Amino acid sequence: MKNLPPRSDGAPDELRAAIRMVPDYPKPGIDFYDITTLLKDPRLLRAALDQLSWLLAHLTVDKIAGIEARGFLFAPTVAYHLGAGFVPIRKAGKLPAESLRESYDLEYGFAEVEMHSDAVHFEGERFLIVDDVLATGGTAQAAGRLVESLGGRVVGFGFLLEIEALKGRERLDEVHSLLKV
Amino acid sequence: MKNLPPRSDGAPDELRAAIRMVPDYPKPGIDFYDITTLLKDPRLLRAALDQLSWLLAHLTVDKIAGIEARGFLFAPTVAYHLGAGFVPIRKAGKLPAESLRESYDLEYGFAEVEMHSDAVHFEGERFLIVDDVLATGGTAQAAGRLVESLGGRVVGFGFLLEIEALKGRERLDEVHSLLKV
Repeated sequence: MKNLPPRSDGAPDELRAAIRMVPDYPKPGIDFYDITTLLKDPRLLRAALDQLSWLLAHLTVDKIAGIEARGFLFAPTVAYHLGAGFVPIRKAGKLPAESLRESYDLEYGFAEVEMHSDAVHFEGERFLIVDDVLATGGTAQAAGRLVESLGGRVVGFGFLLEIEALKGRERLDEVHSLLKV
Repeated sequence: MKNLPPRSDGAPDELRAAIRMVPDYPKPGIDFYDITTLLKDPRLLRAALDQLSWLLAHLTVDKIAGIEARGFLFAPTVAYHLGAGFVPIRKAGKLPAESLRESYDLEYGFAEVEMHSDAVHFEGERFLIVDDVLATGGTAQAAGRLVESLGGRVVGFGFLLEIEALKGRERLDEVHSLLKV
């Protein structure tokens, strides 16, 4: 059962302006979008959580999968508002029970994400994948493969912020992002 | 401004029963309490988030500090309900801006946590520290030292689950835990 908050008109410009850009992090030439400056303001935190939930409220979903670590900040609240369960997608070696693993390419080398094998309850269970920022889309794409390998169906992806220049959207279906830079 | 959900009578026995115990994880002899089996059930997820928020609702707080990674699952929703801001406490090297670092002892060696130096806005700002499980209390204690080193005041600690045998409560002031084993 959905449990949506009152609809607020929102102020995407104000939310976007509260995100701090940290140059040369984690390495020279990379501009890092730091959302902690938004989250520490009570009013903006609430606006971000409400508006992200409303952005995704038209989707019919059974579970929200949140990607470690910053996806964990949004996915449970979205699940709470959409009346869905929450499932974590974690870096390799962090989940205690039997898990499935997927790798994805990084600029140099690769990384891995895992999901509990019993996270999908039935064939076709509808999953929405949530993370804080959509950059190249590699992690989200690997998360989608995990859900599908376990028999789930990915009905969409939700992000607080999309970095349009990195074209992550082209690798994913049904992308919803609250803010864009 | 607080924004509390309707009060539910709750079912702590049912919530506790939904937590899976994984023996010998992460190493032989350790019983790991896996909360993912609770979180994936929409009704229990909502009950856990509502009841944890109500448990902490009598506290007057400015900010909720959530401890990476599983504290991130609860702290933003608690902040949302209590009308507070959210601040992350992360493992060393994960925060992009200037940070303060604290170390704490593990069974073998030590670990470190960090907090952004600008996370505390004024002397005496009231912080509540939130994590999923209270075990020995070492991480939570280090998190409290970070807040205080930056001029904040720790008004309490909130946990979904407290493992009483490990006596973490003795190292901390104002501990509130929704479930106990």
